[in-house]
Amino acid sequence: MRDKDLLDLLVDLSEQGDVPLHMPGHKRNEDLFQMGNPYGLDITEIDGFDNLHNARGIIADEFKRAAALFGAEETLFLVNGSSSGNMAAICGATNKGDKVIVARNIHCSVSNAIYLNELNPVYVYPDINDSMCICGGISAEAVEKAFSENPDAKAVIVTSPTYEGVVSDIGGIAEITHRYGGVLIVDEAHGAHFNFSDAFPDSAVKYGADAVIQSIHKTLPAFTQTALLHLNGDKIDRQRVKMYWNMFQSTSPSYILMAGISRCLTILERDGAALFDGYVKILSELRKKLSGLNYIRLIETDDISKIVLMVSDGKRIYDELRKKYGIQLEMASRNYVIAMTSVGDKQEYYDRFYKALKQLDVPDMKYEDEMQYCEKKEGCGAFGNKNIAVSEKGKTSMFNKMPRARVYVNCYRALNSEKETVKVGDSAGRIAGAAICFYPPGINLVNPGEVITEEIIDIIIDGLRQGLEVIGVGTSGAAADENQRREDKCSNLSVDADYNYSEVKIVCLK
Amino acid sequence: MRDKDLLDLLVDLSEQGDVPLHMPGHKRNEDLFQMGNPYGLDITEIDGFDNLHNARGIIADEFKRAAALFGAEETLFLVNGSSSGNMAAICGATNKGDKVIVARNIHCSVSNAIYLNELNPVYVYPDINDSMCICGGISAEAVEKAFSENPDAKAVIVTSPTYEGVVSDIGGIAEITHRYGGVLIVDEAHGAHFNFSDAFPDSAVKYGADAVIQSIHKTLPAFTQTALLHLNGDKIDRQRVKMYWNMFQSTSPSYILMAGISRCLTILERDGAALFDGYVKILSELRKKLSGLNYIRLIETDDISKIVLMVSDGKRIYDELRKKYGIQLEMASRNYVIAMTSVGDKQEYYDRFYKALKQLDVPDMKYEDEMQYCEKKEGCGAFGNKNIAVSEKGKTSMFNKMPRARVYVNCYRALNSEKETVKVGDSAGRIAGAAICFYPPGINLVNPGEVITEEIIDIIIDGLRQGLEVIGVGTSGAAADENQRREDKCSNLSVDADYNYSEVKIVCLK
Repeated sequence: MRDKDLLDLLVDLSEQGDVPLHMPGHKRNEDLFQMGNPYGLDITEIDGFDNLHNARGIIADEFKRAAALFGAEETLFLVNGSSSGNMAAICGATNKGDKVIVARNIHCSVSNAIYLNELNPVYVYPDINDSMCICGGISAEAVEKAFSENPDAKAVIVTSPTYEGVVSDIGGIAEITHRYGGVLIVDEAHGAHFNFSDAFPDSAVKYGADAVIQSIHKTLPAFTQTALLHLNGDKIDRQRVKMYWNMFQSTSPSYILMAGISRCLTILERDGAALFDGYVKILSELRKKLSGLNYIRLIETDDISKIVLMVSDGKRIYDELRKKYGIQLEMASRNYVIAMTSVGDKQEYYDRFYKALKQLDVPDMKYEDEMQYCEKKEGCGAFGNKNIAVSEKGKTSMFNKMPRARVYVNCYRALNSEKETVKVGDSAGRIAGAAICFYPPGINLVNPGEVITEEIIDIIIDGLRQGLEVIGVGTSGAAADENQRREDKCSNLSVDADYNYSEVKIVCLK
Repeated sequence: MRDKDLLDLLVDLSEQGDVPLHMPGHKRNEDLFQMGNPYGLDITEIDGFDNLHNARGIIADEFKRAAALFGAEETLFLVNGSSSGNMAAICGATNKGDKVIVARNIHCSVSNAIYLNELNPVYVYPDINDSMCICGGISAEAVEKAFSENPDAKAVIVTSPTYEGVVSDIGGIAEITHRYGGVLIVDEAHGAHFNFSDAFPDSAVKYGADAVIQSIHKTLPAFTQTALLHLNGDKIDRQRVKMYWNMFQSTSPSYILMAGISRCLTILERDGAALFDGYVKILSELRKKLSGLNYIRLIETDDISKIVLMVSDGKRIYDELRKKYGIQLEMASRNYVIAMTSVGDKQEYYDRFYKALKQLDVPDMKYEDEMQYCEKKEGCGAFGNKNIAVSEKGKTSMFNKMPRARVYVNCYRALNSEKETVKVGDSAGRIAGAAICFYPPGINLVNPGEVITEEIIDIIIDGLRQGLEVIGVGTSGAAADENQRREDKCSNLSVDADYNYSEVKIVCLK
């Protein structure tokens, strides 16, 4: 038995006083955001407190308040994260077996909806939007091309903004989608803050998307696992979306989580303007200072709230910030890191962050340009997060590919077929029996039912060699188990140079 | 804009000092259960805190701790309620279109799984276990009979205990199920406390069930929306169950909810024996005193934690307890009420409860036996909660039927067919296009795809006339909207005697 349970560990963490440059957006800022002992506040659907699944009272009023604040016609609370909202919108907007146009850099909850409704995805690939090869937006042209080849597609699903803060041309994509009679679903999990300052891009809610899903816990002051589903217009079958919204959420929704959403709305309504003014001001000052660093390079994406820093070794700077300076970043890629900022931040956080970076800003941190590894064409892009290397230069390589998929059978059929494990080195030409992805953020490199190529094998082995965490979506848990021994050996991204990674097993169809 | 948001209202409630004889099981007992400002504790998957969806560290350890405490081979946390556990177990244990043997008094999350996996249910009906006509257990004989007629059924799904605390013969059902090569899934949402005192029935975990789902928030000190999924044996495809367990839960699980589960385990481990000894002692004393009331009648079910009181008018005593005495019960049916007790209770709660009941124990409260309305046969039973009357005697009628369903098409096909709204009075012989149920607990009177009979119409109209809350599962939201005007008129179970309830519309297939 551990000395300390999970609650004890959270208390210890809170007492450490680390700078939280990561989700959730309330930033554990107890000066700004307060709630008493949650055991004293947590209830069930007793008199006067409405029912999330059949809202008529306070919760129905809160839905309307949220819709007004975010500019949507109708808004629903999500206590099971944006995951449940993505799944409800997609399952509700499509019928089984429908064809859908889907950005390749989707979140795994979108993959899950594709599985559940046995959808047949037509992938569109993000552009590369700058010399850093970070995953770009989805262009309207790419969607137009996909529709011209697949005019029977029923829905378009894109992630905008990306983890790094890159937005797509939602207005253009909405126009095309509606012209072809489809509906547009935007996973705006990382853009819940967009509507609260002109310094951020506009929300997809304003650009004609039929359903928009926002994780308010990511960039607004709300508890982890809380999100919103916005619905607009009459092109999407709202009744059907609500059917799935009911299914994918507990019939015993947490009043702590819902009160947290409610309080987030209150903060935005009452103090939002002042809080966001102050936040954007100190954030802009920080960004200005960061852009003056000599070796660490600040990357500009569309959303200034995401601080993307290009460095020679993301994991190293991430670890040093955490261990030496008590600064916890959101994530480390091979060659960049992300710090997430929010309205919950304090000036002190930014001062400590900048001071630490000034000390770490040495020549060794400079990212050496390896543009030769980046083929500047559609299809090359990071996976939104921990990207993976395809060069053989190991440590300093940064570019990655998003290989074009050849779908042999759809995901649903693949996951319901007979499977076996195969050494990754021997898997060329086999059909994937499980998703393979690097986590976070869990965007699939290979979907179940897709043909494994030599290129994919190289990417997997290179990722494993660099110690990236490989996990599965769906039944790839089997693959994860197979990989356990190896991962135990090379935990924390340390690399086992002697290990033959081509021996690692993956799940394929028989 | 409201003066107070949902959080303000929860604070007000907590300051009221009401006696909480309802879920959640921590009973807002701030003397026993504490946590600081949750904004200071809520995190995401940062270093050292593991990943629910790929647990290797503290969360994996917690799974093992839970399994040991509850006697299961393997246990998984649920942050989306027992709903997500029921759905994961059922979808994981079956293939699309499979036949399953299902207790008719299932929770709507089981109905949702039946929908998602396009299952074909064979219903078994609960016995009547006593003269009160409260929904009884499912007998092993009923399951044997269902299997003998449907040897190709792949799984059995039962709810045990019921809301009122009635358990089924899980050992007998497990033996039969395994003999026929099926798996047994037990929705033990109301039985999470069973393993912690000999005063309660044994848990299904001990009786050979392959998957058991428990709402720890209902009867143990844990936050609303938290639950456990226990897996035993090799008959159930655990890998496949985990695939769905991943799908039906947010990729951003709340650390507040998970820390609450963890703390619940700690309390059970460290102080469980003493706490449960004290609780069972004061509960037994209370029950003894309640059994001595003159007119209000204590009903004995299998689980002593559920206080089921038979009275002439459940809603009246429920309201009087709440308004005059500050005692909030779990629920009111026409002719009985349920008070939920737990290890979080204080002696003071029971003293106040008994004192109030002594005052309310007047001749007028006596439930007048109307056994003539109860046909003592399988198929007659309450709906676990708010039951519905089929007599024309209105207020004092209590018996209800669980009409035998004739399935025209399965739920999945029904919900994906063309629909129209029809006056309930004109709906005999039509096929239901949406579920119709009385809430709580949301057990379906009619499932989509079933033939509506005159008997069902009578039950619906009678329920509406008594002001019971009628809501839908699935697309029956449409029916709920249709009924909104009426419900607005007769809210709080007040009855509009002039309204012609046969005009209320329901959703049928075209």
